[in-house]
Amino acid sequence: MLFPEIPANVPDKTFMNKVAIGIDLGGTNTKGLIMNRQGQGRHITRIPTKADQGGNQILRNILDLIEILINKEGSKKDIIGIGIGSPGFIDNSGKILGGAENLPGWKGIQLCKPIQEQFQLPVIATNDVTLAAFAESKYGAGRNIRNMVCFTLGTGIGGGIVIDRKLYKGSNGMAGELGHLVVKTDGIPCNCGQRGCVEQYASASAMVKMARMISAELKKKKETPFTIFVNENPFKVTSKILYDYVKAGDPVAVQVHESACHMLARAIGLTVNALAPDRVILGGGVMKAGPIILDTTARYVPQYCWPDIWAKCGLVIAELGEDAGMLGAATMIFEEKGNDENGTGKN
Amino acid sequence: MLFPEIPANVPDKTFMNKVAIGIDLGGTNTKGLIMNRQGQGRHITRIPTKADQGGNQILRNILDLIEILINKEGSKKDIIGIGIGSPGFIDNSGKILGGAENLPGWKGIQLCKPIQEQFQLPVIATNDVTLAAFAESKYGAGRNIRNMVCFTLGTGIGGGIVIDRKLYKGSNGMAGELGHLVVKTDGIPCNCGQRGCVEQYASASAMVKMARMISAELKKKKETPFTIFVNENPFKVTSKILYDYVKAGDPVAVQVHESACHMLARAIGLTVNALAPDRVILGGGVMKAGPIILDTTARYVPQYCWPDIWAKCGLVIAELGEDAGMLGAATMIFEEKGNDENGTGKN
Repeated sequence: MLFPEIPANVPDKTFMNKVAIGIDLGGTNTKGLIMNRQGQGRHITRIPTKADQGGNQILRNILDLIEILINKEGSKKDIIGIGIGSPGFIDNSGKILGGAENLPGWKGIQLCKPIQEQFQLPVIATNDVTLAAFAESKYGAGRNIRNMVCFTLGTGIGGGIVIDRKLYKGSNGMAGELGHLVVKTDGIPCNCGQRGCVEQYASASAMVKMARMISAELKKKKETPFTIFVNENPFKVTSKILYDYVKAGDPVAVQVHESACHMLARAIGLTVNALAPDRVILGGGVMKAGPIILDTTARYVPQYCWPDIWAKCGLVIAELGEDAGMLGAATMIFEEKGNDENGTGKN
Repeated sequence: MLFPEIPANVPDKTFMNKVAIGIDLGGTNTKGLIMNRQGQGRHITRIPTKADQGGNQILRNILDLIEILINKEGSKKDIIGIGIGSPGFIDNSGKILGGAENLPGWKGIQLCKPIQEQFQLPVIATNDVTLAAFAESKYGAGRNIRNMVCFTLGTGIGGGIVIDRKLYKGSNGMAGELGHLVVKTDGIPCNCGQRGCVEQYASASAMVKMARMISAELKKKKETPFTIFVNENPFKVTSKILYDYVKAGDPVAVQVHESACHMLARAIGLTVNALAPDRVILGGGVMKAGPIILDTTARYVPQYCWPDIWAKCGLVIAELGEDAGMLGAATMIFEEKGNDENGTGKN
């Protein structure tokens, strides 16, 4: 999603020109932008994360990206802070506590302090998916919604919770680990140490794994176009390819899809019973498959929560796509730092 | 828990003398009090609920109880509103949507309107356990805690969530149905339509049921003092008696206790992964058994959530006992109505 540039002719009065930097650290690319309070961004920049070069190199790349953004902006004077979204658990001091397995050497890194020291600006870091959920609540599928829960279906499953229109971080910024809600007792073992987490059933990698397993079982028995493709190209299968076959009606592809949606519905049911949100939002790369996931999941949810609560809850697809993380990161700065002396001048 | 009377000689200046009525509707008794903003109560009154006489009679009894409280107070002039806690789902208009199976004929009743009309005061009703959790956060085991989750173990299991020190009600007041978190896939069928809800494993009635089942199986085989008692007095078993045997080391009683705590730990783990609360509070009649439930449950929780999150979360016993519901009901009035023109005079 693209935002218009801030018009150059806006006079520098009150807080109109104040901006924040938003950074989204991903497994492949790291993206950043400069954004104003209205959610309008400019200077969107993307650099490779180079995750294989280790935690310190990732940090240096983030510092470089911020430098690039400030240079594009021309000056630091209107920048009120830097928000960063990262995979994993990040405590309130900006230390990576864990949970970011696709970034080797990232655990233990103190993310905020070196950035703060180099640029002399307030820095806040939190979980990337939590921030994406927050952006959805501000500018996307959760606009005007008071309480919402967001599941992000990608390689893994992340979550974000917005309560009373505010980002809910929980103790030490660790709330929203919705990928690790258990949906099957004694189910598939998960990295987190539990068994049966929804991430093991409804993430892209879980679906691919299941597709490979079923296809191998059916080999030379009851093959379908999908199992033939999978058995011939086991490492080329993606959730996108799976959904091409689902939409063509391939029975095995449909079986994988139904199973994933069924398990996702259980996780949604748990959050509905606990939080009675006004809306549940499904985002992440898997959702590029579109309404078919929404429709199938919605069919299963009523079995897994109080119907009275579910009747009041909407289930929709995220709107902001891959920009949500950096938009959320910049928005967090306006929420948490936007009213102090560095911020709007309002207070 | 008793609160001192408001001293009669406090001069009627600013909002010192403003009070709220708090009502707690229970399956057996309905209780009410008059409370000030500091959490000091007076005129605590208890009447029988007479649940078997139907919904309209329950409502008439609540009206009578409010009348009694106003008469004891002598005047309505300092009363800013009436808060009511009831079992079940209550929507924001005060209608009972369901979920109060121990009060036949209560579903469908419009609770707030007749009270408002009779007494010409603002009335708010919500779930009783949610209100008990709120009272704990204000005056009990959750004082000074920002985000907390409360499980109330009684005949069933209820829940309450406090976020950012405020009562979290969710869409239409229905949040906190923590007794219906599924902890066992395809487990024991529950009234709510799901299978494997924690209420079917860790409530007083679930423990009694399990004690009866195991005792019947072991009859004339491998009996223990507890199974002998249960088989001789199947309808006299209570959670209190169970815990007397647990504390005496009876192996079957211990087995029932361990199983209940294990399942409760799974439900706690789900809330910890989703909400990363600062504290989880266990309340309700079952908790009269004391720290043994806390200790056993705490032993199981780390298996069912991210250890990093759990490390930051406390697990404690509720402090306010059976008064929590009515204290929470009155507190809700101060929170939601205490700042308007009928309230403090502050604005």
